[in-house]
Amino acid sequence: MDYQSAFQDAVRRVKAEGRYRVFADLLRRKGDFPVARWRTEDGKVRDVTVWCSNDYLGMGQLPCVVESMKKAIDDVGSGAGGTRNISGTTHYHVELERSLADLHQKDSALLFTSGYIANEATLATLGKILPGLIMFSDELNHASMIEGVKGARCEKRIWRHNDVAHLEELLAAAPKDAPKVIAFESVYSMDGDIGPLEAVCDLADKYGALTYLDEVHAVGLYGLRGAGIAERDGLMDRIDIIEGTLGKAFGVMGGYIAADGAIVDAIRSLAPGFIFTTALPPALAAGARASVEYLKAAHHLREQHQERAASLKTQLLAAGYPVMPSDTHIVPVKVGDPVLCKRISDMLLDEHGIYVQPINYPTVPRGTERLRLTPSPLHTDAMFDQLVEALDDVWERASEQAGVARG
Amino acid sequence: MDYQSAFQDAVRRVKAEGRYRVFADLLRRKGDFPVARWRTEDGKVRDVTVWCSNDYLGMGQLPCVVESMKKAIDDVGSGAGGTRNISGTTHYHVELERSLADLHQKDSALLFTSGYIANEATLATLGKILPGLIMFSDELNHASMIEGVKGARCEKRIWRHNDVAHLEELLAAAPKDAPKVIAFESVYSMDGDIGPLEAVCDLADKYGALTYLDEVHAVGLYGLRGAGIAERDGLMDRIDIIEGTLGKAFGVMGGYIAADGAIVDAIRSLAPGFIFTTALPPALAAGARASVEYLKAAHHLREQHQERAASLKTQLLAAGYPVMPSDTHIVPVKVGDPVLCKRISDMLLDEHGIYVQPINYPTVPRGTERLRLTPSPLHTDAMFDQLVEALDDVWERASEQAGVARG
Ligand SMILES: Cc1ncc(COP(=O)(O)O)c(C=O)c1O
Ligand SMILES: Cc1ncc(COP(=O)(O)O)c(C=O)c1O
Repeated sequence: MDYQSAFQDAVRRVKAEGRYRVFADLLRRKGDFPVARWRTEDGKVRDVTVWCSNDYLGMGQLPCVVESMKKAIDDVGSGAGGTRNISGTTHYHVELERSLADLHQKDSALLFTSGYIANEATLATLGKILPGLIMFSDELNHASMIEGVKGARCEKRIWRHNDVAHLEELLAAAPKDAPKVIAFESVYSMDGDIGPLEAVCDLADKYGALTYLDEVHAVGLYGLRGAGIAERDGLMDRIDIIEGTLGKAFGVMGGYIAADGAIVDAIRSLAPGFIFTTALPPALAAGARASVEYLKAAHHLREQHQERAASLKTQLLAAGYPVMPSDTHIVPVKVGDPVLCKRISDMLLDEHGIYVQPINYPTVPRGTERLRLTPSPLHTDAMFDQLVEALDDVWERASEQAGVARG
Repeated sequence: MDYQSAFQDAVRRVKAEGRYRVFADLLRRKGDFPVARWRTEDGKVRDVTVWCSNDYLGMGQLPCVVESMKKAIDDVGSGAGGTRNISGTTHYHVELERSLADLHQKDSALLFTSGYIANEATLATLGKILPGLIMFSDELNHASMIEGVKGARCEKRIWRHNDVAHLEELLAAAPKDAPKVIAFESVYSMDGDIGPLEAVCDLADKYGALTYLDEVHAVGLYGLRGAGIAERDGLMDRIDIIEGTLGKAFGVMGGYIAADGAIVDAIRSLAPGFIFTTALPPALAAGARASVEYLKAAHHLREQHQERAASLKTQLLAAGYPVMPSDTHIVPVKVGDPVLCKRISDMLLDEHGIYVQPINYPTVPRGTERLRLTPSPLHTDAMFDQLVEALDDVWERASEQAGVARG
């Protein structure tokens, strides 16, 4: 068996599809977001403007967040030193779980090391707790939910994206007394559209299903206290399990669920992805809590954020760029080809100091490759103008070159 | 469908087996390890000595580690702000991956958010890259490896723990040209025994298999530069994929693999658990790198650590306690009953300020419940004496009470 070739071939296939990833080597500059230092392959360092961060509000540099982290490090040191059960629970974890339960107006919350593992571990464990479970999963759910649904080893039905009629068809066709979970997202991160929360809750009531909602791209950003779309739409009490991250709008790292006490206690007691792993460092819990609490009271930031996104869409559309329809802070500009997408991105970075990562398959379906822009309250009008000028400069040239390269 | 009862029943079953977990609410005190503040259920705070941390060397409070973290926070802020591919790679990540590749003398290393996800994502992805793969997994492998093997959706053979004759039988019975991976651990964390590395490598050569070794409880602790048991035994170049954590001896958080460049590039390009999740905060990468580099040159700490473990075993055996045979720094004392194990642990904490978490099923097989002690170089002779006196005080009393409670 020639293993070496097998691994090389796997990489070669990725390259052949134009989706081989080269990571940009960056250093943000605290206090200067969205500006960062970018290290080129030959080791030179240049300032760039980051246009694709998921630290949507720039919370990662907020004094109260970074100072909370440093204070916790001074207090207790760097790591948790154990799993949650074996010496790894600190008061920082306990307090953060309380803050999150309060944010979502639920009995309890449970921390995981990431939003990815929160989805995967929780969904998989629901399959163990509820024998005969049927999982109803939106077709565009995030990879971590897909892995969780697979891990649940239960029957599953995939409903067409945001199509509640299709969801109802599938629910109606399932045995009445089988346990059911409907898993979906509020903000779909690559298109910026929003799941049909209320209609799904109505169907859940009608067919006796639990609702599981990923609010990863909405927590901190929507609702009066930043609890997400379910808060904005007055539906928090109708979602059984809300899942979120501490790594995007909250600017730190980690994931969580918030739910009824019995649900949380069962997941806490049974999910391998929660039990068998070192707890988050206390400093991350401290920083995340500062961020969550700050954002409960900082609705003005959410308003600024929405204003920035709306104006960027307007400006790009006026300049003739194919902004994909989006109901949120996410501004996707369609390119439709992985090679061209990477080329535009490379030229923006090299020639204009504008960093926006190309989004290619498997993150989005083939043929819908795009630039995904995430303007924050700290992206200024001047930066908007720079961006449009830079696009004007590179878009056509890149298309021609890509055409030539392909031709 | 009565979901509420289903969740409550799940928790009730855990309780009935005496394995319901109550997390101790702790705050270590930087500079004072292994002493920590423990918050009782009524909110009082008391000093306790921690005897079950996996921060085996107390690196979590080392000035160079905590200062590196704080400096990184001052430099770039709190979180990475994106996945590794989408704005989340910083120079801290790049440098840490280089340090880890150097530690294990491999081409490349790849960071994950935890050791758990490193195992799960890597093993699962091997199943995708190598069609027809057969996975040979030691029966006592960690939960994260078990999940990874399941996720690989390939054929698997479970070999009896550390039994190379059984492993060979299974290898010999498999089709000659099928791709094969042998997955095992170096230090088994609950028993403290060591996998048969050399014999496994010999079999891997003979039967054309790849070797995958979890060194989570060995990195930082064994070998001249702390690369683990494979380094100690001169076998690093015969292990194809080494997996480790930054959350135990290195005192921070995160996981990684180190391997040949083609293997790492393939996993990097294809593993959902690597691709679709926010990168580690730069501060964790900075702290972990400081710790890894420090321990490359701090062999004296490893020697002190081994001395402490050996003396604790001697002292406990002399005092008549059932120390389980262990070849490593892990000192398991067998109790054999989950209720008694929890009772002894509770009494040590309440009455003596000694914190050692009971280890019950599913972390260890039923009937082998134990106290798992992890003495560090910072556990003094006086602490050893206190521990033995405390055990003398509670062991019999707890057994009698547990007997009465059961009877
Ligand atoms: C919808 C969705 N859910 C979950 C995750 C995972 O969250 P985390 O980055 O905290 O692992 C992501 C992105 O990474 C996501 O986009
Ligand atoms: C053998 C083994 N592998 C992997 C892990 C997971 O590592 P981490 O704590 O970094 O997730 C653990 C413990 O948590 C372990 O004991």
